[in-house]
This record gives sequence, C-alpha cells and structure tokens, in this order.
Amino acid sequence: MKIVIDCYGADYSPDELVKGAITSVNLIEDVEIILTGNQEEIQKVMDEVGYKGNKIEIVDAKDVISCNESPTMAIRRKKDSSLVAGLNILKDREDVIGMISAGSTGAVLAGGLFVIGRMDGVKRPALAPFLPTMTGGKTLLIDCGANVDCKPEYLQQFAIMGSIYVKSMLGIENPRVGLISNGVEEHKGNEQIHQTFELLKNTPEINFVGNMEAREMLSGDYDVLVCDGFTGNVALKSAEGTIKCFMEVLKQEIKAGGVRAKTGYLFMKKALKKIKARLNYTDVGGSPFLGINKILVKSHGSSKAKTIYSCVLQVMEIHKSNYIEKMREGIKNSSIAGEE
Amino acid sequence: MKIVIDCYGADYSPDELVKGAITSVNLIEDVEIILTGNQEEIQKVMDEVGYKGNKIEIVDAKDVISCNESPTMAIRRKKDSSLVAGLNILKDREDVIGMISAGSTGAVLAGGLFVIGRMDGVKRPALAPFLPTMTGGKTLLIDCGANVDCKPEYLQQFAIMGSIYVKSMLGIENPRVGLISNGVEEHKGNEQIHQTFELLKNTPEINFVGNMEAREMLSGDYDVLVCDGFTGNVALKSAEGTIKCFMEVLKQEIKAGGVRAKTGYLFMKKALKKIKARLNYTDVGGSPFLGINKILVKSHGSSKAKTIYSCVLQVMEIHKSNYIEKMREGIKNSSIAGEE
Repeated sequence: MKIVIDCYGADYSPDELVKGAITSVNLIEDVEIILTGNQEEIQKVMDEVGYKGNKIEIVDAKDVISCNESPTMAIRRKKDSSLVAGLNILKDREDVIGMISAGSTGAVLAGGLFVIGRMDGVKRPALAPFLPTMTGGKTLLIDCGANVDCKPEYLQQFAIMGSIYVKSMLGIENPRVGLISNGVEEHKGNEQIHQTFELLKNTPEINFVGNMEAREMLSGDYDVLVCDGFTGNVALKSAEGTIKCFMEVLKQEIKAGGVRAKTGYLFMKKALKKIKARLNYTDVGGSPFLGINKILVKSHGSSKAKTIYSCVLQVMEIHKSNYIEKMREGIKNSSIAGEE
Repeated sequence: MKIVIDCYGADYSPDELVKGAITSVNLIEDVEIILTGNQEEIQKVMDEVGYKGNKIEIVDAKDVISCNESPTMAIRRKKDSSLVAGLNILKDREDVIGMISAGSTGAVLAGGLFVIGRMDGVKRPALAPFLPTMTGGKTLLIDCGANVDCKPEYLQQFAIMGSIYVKSMLGIENPRVGLISNGVEEHKGNEQIHQTFELLKNTPEINFVGNMEAREMLSGDYDVLVCDGFTGNVALKSAEGTIKCFMEVLKQEIKAGGVRAKTGYLFMKKALKKIKARLNYTDVGGSPFLGINKILVKSHGSSKAKTIYSCVLQVMEIHKSNYIEKMREGIKNSSIAGEE
C-alpha cells in the first residue's frame, strides 16, 4: 500500500516528516511511502538516519506553501509545491491509498477540494478528528475547522457523514450524535442550532440524541459531535489550552510545594505522562478530510515523527475499513440525497 | 452594605445559599444580607446552623423559577418567585448594592433586562466572568452566554464594556483585547469575526491586540476575551469538561499505577487540590451581568456556601470600584455612543 507524505509547510519540515516515514516503513510490513518536497534535503535526512531500503520514493517539488498565503491562490499558483505535487500523485495513481500533510490547514483543505474533489452529493467536506474520551473510547468531532460559516443543511450532512465514518472505523452500529450547543434543552442554542436541531430530529438514518454542552464532549456519552468549523476549532483549542495550563500550573505547584510535592511528582511521573498521552489527540493521528474522493489526513503543524507514524497507521485503517466506498454509498442513499 | 441573595432555583437550594449568607455576615463586618424565598424553609436552615444575629433579613416569596420554563414568561408571570422578589428589592431599595442568584441563567438575564433595565446606550448587556490565567492573573470572558446571536456591533461594545470593567476592577490601564477566532491571522474567522475585526481595529478607546485562538485564553496574554455568548459558552464548558476529564483519567491512572503512583498521589495531594482550586473559576465568584443598571451576579447552578461567599465579596468589590458610574460614563463617552 502506497501513501504520500507532504514533507514541507510544517514546523519540523522536512526532518520529522522524513523520520516518520522511515519509522513507518520499518515498522509496518506492507507500506511504501512517497515523499514530496526538496529532493536533496529529504535525501540528506534519509542519509543521516541511515535508511538504505527501497520502500521510500522521493518526488522532487521545490516550492513550499506557507500558512501566511491565501490557500486558494497558493494551490492554483504553486504547482511545484510539495503539497500540490502530493495531491496530484494521490489523484492520479491508483496504487496510492492516501496522503498526509502537516502543512497549512487552509491549503490542505483547498487542495483537497480543487485537486481531489468532493464525492457526489457532498455539500461541504469536513475535518473530523477522533478525540479520546474519559471512558477510554473515542468520539468524532465534525467539523473542526474546514467550514467556519455553515448552513444548517451542512451540519445535518456532517451528522450523516460522521455517523457513516464512525460506523466504518469503530464498528458502532448506531453512533450517538450530539449537537454542540449552550445547553441540553431543545430551546437552547443560537438560530443556526435551532434550525439544525429541527433537521437532525427528522433525519432517519442517524441516532440523534439531542443538544449537548461542550462540557460533555469527552464524557463518552456521544460518538459524533456535530458543530460548525468555527465552534469545533474553539472547543478543541480551548481543551488544548486547558491541558497546557494544567500542566504549567502543576509545574509551578511542584516547584512551590517543597520536597513532598517533588517526591510525589517523581512517583507519579509515569502516570502523568500516560495522561498527557491519553488526552493528547495530536499523538493519536490527524484529522481526515471527510467527503472528498480520496483519503487525505491533515496532521498537526507541530507533528513529530511519531505523529506521522500514527497518521500512516490511521490512513491504513481508514483504507482497510473500506470507508471511501461506504461513504459514497451512504451519501447516495441518505435521506437528503439530491438536495442542493 | 446590603446584598440580596435569591435562595431558590439552584442545585442546593436553599441550604447552601443560606449557609453562604451566614458565612458572609459572620466574616465580613459591614455587610447585611436579604434572602428571598420560602421563609419557613430558610428560617429552618438558619435555626439548624444556629444563626442568631440581626444582619440577615428574609423576604418571603414562595414561587420558584426552574431551568425548564421559558425565562421571559417566568419573569412576567411569577411575581412571587424568589428571583423576581429579589430583583424588585434590588431595583427599588437604594441601600441595596447588588444581588446574587444561582438560579436559571436565562431567567436571571431576562429579569436583569426587564426588571432592572439596561444602562443608556448599551445595546446588549453581557455575562462576563473572570477566568484564572496560567500566569496567576485574571482574564475577562465577554460574553459567556447572554447573547447567543450577535451582530458585530454588539461584539464591539462587549470589547468596550469589558475594557471599562477590567480597568475598574483590576486597575489595568490599557486592557489587551483579543477576539476569539480560529487563528491569529487577520483573514481567519467566520463572517461575523471578519466584520468585528474591522470594527475593533477602528475603536480608538480600546487596546485591540487582534484575533486569538481559544488555546491562548488562559495564557495571560489577554485581559479581555471577546466573543458571542454561544462561542463563550462552548469555550468555557470545553475547558471545564477537560479539567473534569483530566481529574478522572488521573484517578484511573493512579488506580492502575500501583503503589508508586498511589504514594506519589498522596505526596502531591495538596498541590493537586491547589491546582483544582486555581483553575476552578466557579470558586472565585460568579459572572456579573454587565450593562444593566445595578450589580447582578449570576452564580453557578451548583454553588456551595463558599461560592456564595465569594460572590458576596465580588459584589462588594464591584461596588467599591465604582463600576456602575464608570461604566455609564464610559458608554456615554464611547466612540460608538448614539449608534443604534
């Protein structure tokens, strides 16, 4: 199985991306990787690590798309960028099952739309990462940043797409769908949420539980969390910032707490590390861009080699679940098919 | 100084509210409390605690407004509710400096609007709690739930009101204002944010720093965080849920981690307790409803006696800062005064 990795546009480009690719081909038997980007620089990292195998191919593409340029313009103009080169390989080569990029989110989304294209019937593709829950499971947040302005019909389709994906990936028969609002009662929410609530109530193919508070996102009571991309971004980033704040305050308290606290910390170090790992969704893979015609995973801008390795595993899992076919089928047969 | 406390509509009504009042008059010399609600039940709690002083007055009001009824209807119809009785006292009696309620947020807001009324020139009053930052300071989140659908002009005025309040309460000369968005760049955000960004850039009386990510809310880099009430609620509740999740996973890891982890926990217990307290904004008071003609503080529905005591201190602080006058003055002289 071949997977493309865009090696540029990320915080640790190209080193960590290349190292992630090497880890992947070393640890996973049936995977081959195509790296796009500056060939010499990539080769240099491979030489430093000492990789001599034949499971990694480099496709030279010297341009880089940064976070500061207009995504749409960049995709159209920078044909020789590592991102566009990768997307073209993903589109054209049938033996390539998916692609990973840790570059500019906007550019990856624009590229997914313009180069790869939406599935028939999909109104707006969406970014949908799995978050770890308190009960040890996973919950899907859809959309977490692809569509900042959403009509209620888009949110309705996110609920359908999210349900199909969760069923395909986790084998859950009737994924519980929650609509993120400012309270659980039906009358809670803004105008957008009120209208979406009505639509979701009347969407027979999903298991709509009702409105939910952002407080319950990680409770394990929901399999699919529906919101627009702006709200999803705020919810996710707020959680991220809180964990960061918690760890920082913990450090301060340990420093100020004297010998007892320091000793305690040493004893608990392993447990705290495990918690950080459990709650750190960036370690467990990236966000697939659901609703486009190929598997495209957006990894965190600050991805390290192990993040990229997780993403490779994620692409393989998505591929093995037969997600693309199931999503196409599900969208075609959904109760809102044919709407515009 | 007299303060009204609405004893009903909260999770631990009336016991914890009454106990909070007793703690307050016992610990704070120059405060007197007026309790509204079922007189016999309130008296019973006072007898149980053994309060014999003369600094607490009870005003009988038998009706209760719950979270499940329409706030506006409830305020209009339930004239004999503890909430409406309290608001009328707040409105009519000049020696009463403020009021605290832990009842239905919607009803408290509706009551604040209809019974107390907005200050001249205020478009939409807003709920604005202080959150603790990583650096040991405070940051104001405005709006956190009063206005779920906001025009950009409302957000602009939140920035102005928040700045006046922060200056008044914390003595910060030019509070740094951040606009919560899905990225720091000027082009980030949804349609509402784009329009608000333009307005804030051109509001001379505030110190607008720019767009910010929800991840940075607790960083200490901002004094005023501006967003609509829907977004504010999601950001706050997501942070709350993350802390809950962190503590729960910590418990699980300690259980699973054997003797070392358990021992470590015992050593660190005090530090962890302090962190929980530092990050738990519900312990540090409630959310004032900014922009109405009196000091009205909404406390958490699950308030305990110590929360109520914090709210009493908060009302006194707000009063002493001369906030009402400063806010009236600030709104009157603001660059957008007279707009509609």
